[in-house]
Amino acid sequence: MYRTHNCGELREQHINAPVTLAGWVQTVRKFGSITFVDLRDRYGITQLYFNEALTQQLDEKPLGREFVIQAEGKVIERTSKNAKIATGNIEIEVSAYTVLNKSSVPPFTIEEETDGGEELRMKYRYLDLRRPTLQRNLELRYRVNRSVRNYMDAQGFYDIETPFLIKSTPEGARDFIVPSRMNGGQFYALPQSPQTFKQLLMVSGYDRYYQIVKCFRDEDLRADRQPEFTQIDCEMAFVEQEDILNMFEGLTKHVFRDVKGMEFATAFPRMTWSEAMKRYGNDKPDIRFGMELKELKTPAGALDEHDESLDLVGGAAFKVMDDAEYVVAIAAPGCSEYTRKQLDELTDWVKRPQIGMTGLMYVKCNADGSLKSSVDKFYDEARLRVWADQCAAQPGDLILVLAGPAERTRKAMSELRLEMGNKLGLRKRDEYKPLWVIDFPLLEFAENNDDGGGAGRWVARHHPFTAPKPDQISWMQDPARYPYIKANAYDLVLNGTEVGGGSIRIYQRDLQLKMFEALGIDEHEAQEKFGFLLGAFEYGAPPHGGLALGFDRLCALLGGDETIRDYIAFPKNNSGRDVMLDAPSAVNPVQLDELQLKIVE
Amino acid sequence: MYRTHNCGELREQHINAPVTLAGWVQTVRKFGSITFVDLRDRYGITQLYFNEALTQQLDEKPLGREFVIQAEGKVIERTSKNAKIATGNIEIEVSAYTVLNKSSVPPFTIEEETDGGEELRMKYRYLDLRRPTLQRNLELRYRVNRSVRNYMDAQGFYDIETPFLIKSTPEGARDFIVPSRMNGGQFYALPQSPQTFKQLLMVSGYDRYYQIVKCFRDEDLRADRQPEFTQIDCEMAFVEQEDILNMFEGLTKHVFRDVKGMEFATAFPRMTWSEAMKRYGNDKPDIRFGMELKELKTPAGALDEHDESLDLVGGAAFKVMDDAEYVVAIAAPGCSEYTRKQLDELTDWVKRPQIGMTGLMYVKCNADGSLKSSVDKFYDEARLRVWADQCAAQPGDLILVLAGPAERTRKAMSELRLEMGNKLGLRKRDEYKPLWVIDFPLLEFAENNDDGGGAGRWVARHHPFTAPKPDQISWMQDPARYPYIKANAYDLVLNGTEVGGGSIRIYQRDLQLKMFEALGIDEHEAQEKFGFLLGAFEYGAPPHGGLALGFDRLCALLGGDETIRDYIAFPKNNSGRDVMLDAPSAVNPVQLDELQLKIVE
Repeated sequence: MYRTHNCGELREQHINAPVTLAGWVQTVRKFGSITFVDLRDRYGITQLYFNEALTQQLDEKPLGREFVIQAEGKVIERTSKNAKIATGNIEIEVSAYTVLNKSSVPPFTIEEETDGGEELRMKYRYLDLRRPTLQRNLELRYRVNRSVRNYMDAQGFYDIETPFLIKSTPEGARDFIVPSRMNGGQFYALPQSPQTFKQLLMVSGYDRYYQIVKCFRDEDLRADRQPEFTQIDCEMAFVEQEDILNMFEGLTKHVFRDVKGMEFATAFPRMTWSEAMKRYGNDKPDIRFGMELKELKTPAGALDEHDESLDLVGGAAFKVMDDAEYVVAIAAPGCSEYTRKQLDELTDWVKRPQIGMTGLMYVKCNADGSLKSSVDKFYDEARLRVWADQCAAQPGDLILVLAGPAERTRKAMSELRLEMGNKLGLRKRDEYKPLWVIDFPLLEFAENNDDGGGAGRWVARHHPFTAPKPDQISWMQDPARYPYIKANAYDLVLNGTEVGGGSIRIYQRDLQLKMFEALGIDEHEAQEKFGFLLGAFEYGAPPHGGLALGFDRLCALLGGDETIRDYIAFPKNNSGRDVMLDAPSAVNPVQLDELQLKIVE
Repeated sequence: MYRTHNCGELREQHINAPVTLAGWVQTVRKFGSITFVDLRDRYGITQLYFNEALTQQLDEKPLGREFVIQAEGKVIERTSKNAKIATGNIEIEVSAYTVLNKSSVPPFTIEEETDGGEELRMKYRYLDLRRPTLQRNLELRYRVNRSVRNYMDAQGFYDIETPFLIKSTPEGARDFIVPSRMNGGQFYALPQSPQTFKQLLMVSGYDRYYQIVKCFRDEDLRADRQPEFTQIDCEMAFVEQEDILNMFEGLTKHVFRDVKGMEFATAFPRMTWSEAMKRYGNDKPDIRFGMELKELKTPAGALDEHDESLDLVGGAAFKVMDDAEYVVAIAAPGCSEYTRKQLDELTDWVKRPQIGMTGLMYVKCNADGSLKSSVDKFYDEARLRVWADQCAAQPGDLILVLAGPAERTRKAMSELRLEMGNKLGLRKRDEYKPLWVIDFPLLEFAENNDDGGGAGRWVARHHPFTAPKPDQISWMQDPARYPYIKANAYDLVLNGTEVGGGSIRIYQRDLQLKMFEALGIDEHEAQEKFGFLLGAFEYGAPPHGGLALGFDRLCALLGGDETIRDYIAFPKNNSGRDVMLDAPSAVNPVQLDELQLKIVE
């Protein structure tokens, strides 16, 4: 036996007990003829006391940082206690020690605040993983996992495994493919989600299914995207949207309670997709702060069939405004005294390519009630007052105005709002504001085909199994005429991050075929690609729906961080390589040849 | 809301309650002017009663098998109760019903004993999965999952995810490879196990790790092998073999208690690999019955360095025996009166190619104490008596004798023993006999290289990270001279099935290099292939070891079955295709080309 106790559990009640500990040397501190060693493991740190004789032994058998040792001795009371650590009232009077393994000097310090840069820490991930931050993060990830499972279990969900080696589906452009030696020239695909399998499980009567499961996408790695990611994947039969929202609101509350001791006192607010786009310019609004978007000019029917046109900027012979499809404003509180320099910086910020605006207008709402704008040449104070009223601006606010094409301008203002939120410290790390965004559009127009060319086409916004709003089914026949058609689809948004999303599914064969038709997939093609699902729908498919939550994102949010990488033990780096194993690797051409890959060149 | 209750929960206490149920129509039974419908879901079956008026409605809106319906009504007491089902005391007096989805007539009956053949049931797996047997199996699988997690959690293990897209390792011959679009011409591999990652987690100080995780092998599908399979994967730091055996004996007992309400009263017996091979001819002996192998002739040092030579068959001028390297017998109880025909059948059985023997000898131990053999020509009764004594044979036993090359003959006798065990009903489905097999060989000689040719070489029997017995380390330098070298490696065997295996790992860089050397891998190659692990060993790797249990096999064993396929929701069929999605599929050559696969032909 290597140890009688771990490094985090000894207390005053153990005084005089003979113990053996094992762990890593955190520090060695010599004071004259005696030595103190901090011994570390996952559970904590315990101080070892080496007397004069043992300190002499240390000269022959020295200890260094990260050495792995075993130490025998007796628990004694510490003379100078350390209230900062749980074992701080005791120490071990060492009688003998063994070096189990030496360590070279680590390339960076294994401490909360390390001196190692990002790249170095990624290269030596096994050392970075020893740091308290990473240890806490992986423990948190495990606790979230447990908490989710306990809730799902109590709610009668079965964890049912679905295959990883599957047939490629039409979203195939992003599929990883896996050649099979046993089926020469043929390939599996890795699943982007267990979507079809969980629907089949509902058809098979499993009623409530969940998995915490890896999914795969062969995409470029944007910030916080990994080619493999983990999903809390769920499906329920005989449910309506309301049942699902309640179930997973319950899950979210349960996990926050378990892992952070935090209560959400009230029900999560709900907002339609149209409203979210209108008020925040974004389908995943950060509602920790207000500063909502206020339209000054908009065409009719921009987001849904109820949308009316508005124009509070016309008639001033100002070409920028007259040409603009869409004009939108926010009122930044307490910013009316922004300097020229600050305003120029903001203007540069919106002109960056990733934002793409040509300029920024402003109206200062001075403390004395007067208004002063960058467009005074065109608009008198009465007109500016109309804008200020529209924004419910207060004296001291700075109204920022963007004008341009609707989609781009809305997105730009959404970004500007978040940027102002950051500047003003309104996006607090320890504040959590969940939101259900509902009634997502069923379809969206893709300008290009998957191969990057072509005339564009209507695609499923969520996926082709999502049910349209029952009273809008007839609109599916002509999406160009009825682009507003909405689905029973919903996202769970937390602090501006999309944590998860789902939908009520189509469960009738006829409606599914109608959906494929709207997507330009005829019955023959549908049969070929989705025959198994259409087949299953012939034998009594129940109404069903589900949700998938991004496990990596949820963990990072619970940890109060924006990057998921610190919550994954072995993430990929920015080029998709494993942080340590340096995958992917080149494969020997001979080995490929054995796989009988046939390529027509 | 689709239902107020499920189909398994209504009881007498609910009588008079208004309820709404939803589910599948199991049966429709018309009696004159009224009708009874059994409604089924995951939770049970509830009888619906349709009165005269509603029975008339059924003519216009008929119900058939597997229709999905919703029924409103009132709970009433049944006049003829059904004690066989939990809801058998009540029924629902239906006031209205809705057909949610129709069903074609299923291709086989959705019942315990179905009329559907294997192939048909695989094709319509979503219907097969509705059968009570499969529903029970998948529920059992889920309960095993929960039970394992609860134990591991209580023991302080963290569930830590390891990557699926990794660098190919030297066992690479069996790796599935995954081309990456983002890294043209390069490939990931799918892990055969998280072995290296879990060792790195030990180096990182996570102390106790587990996962229930998919693993992948691109191999031919023998009975009960799937290209993707699920493993309970564990690793512990600062442990010796004893700690690991105790921990996982505890897990096994816990799961059997949870899932089957079964107690193993005593500690699991342990047997060295050498002893298992000697007594059962097999490293995963089924110890539910005796009929142990008794050697009549064996060379010295067949299995370990203590093995002495023996010859109880020589000096009779019987060439078969004199030429044989190895002669072994079993005594089949109560079989002394086997007929000529039965004996011929057994002889044919051992002559089958997969057994590969040239013949079978026997000695009948008659009830009167006399002996009668098929080799009377060569051996007198005194000599046969020696064999009978060696076998501790009783009157009424039939001694079966095989002679030939040691390895093949031992294996053949092991198979013959199991066959006789089957014939005699000694392998009981509901009896569980666990066994630890320990002290496995460190190395084994592979006759061929991976590519099927070459001169053969020494390979790691478990894997190259397994620690040799400390007192045998020096033998590693010359495996040809010391083939007996044993490892701290162990298997958990249950009823003749290897449920899991593991080992104490090497954690010192020098010893790991020595191991690679024994396997013919020089330091340069080792650095290239395992640099990350050797690197990690430089920074304070703790002693560690672990175990992996076959989750699919464990579930099948707990269910009392031999085939794992009925415990996996969506297994592959014999040619590796998904039972429903018919994966793998052919990939468009153009798509492959986009992946920039380079093949030298």
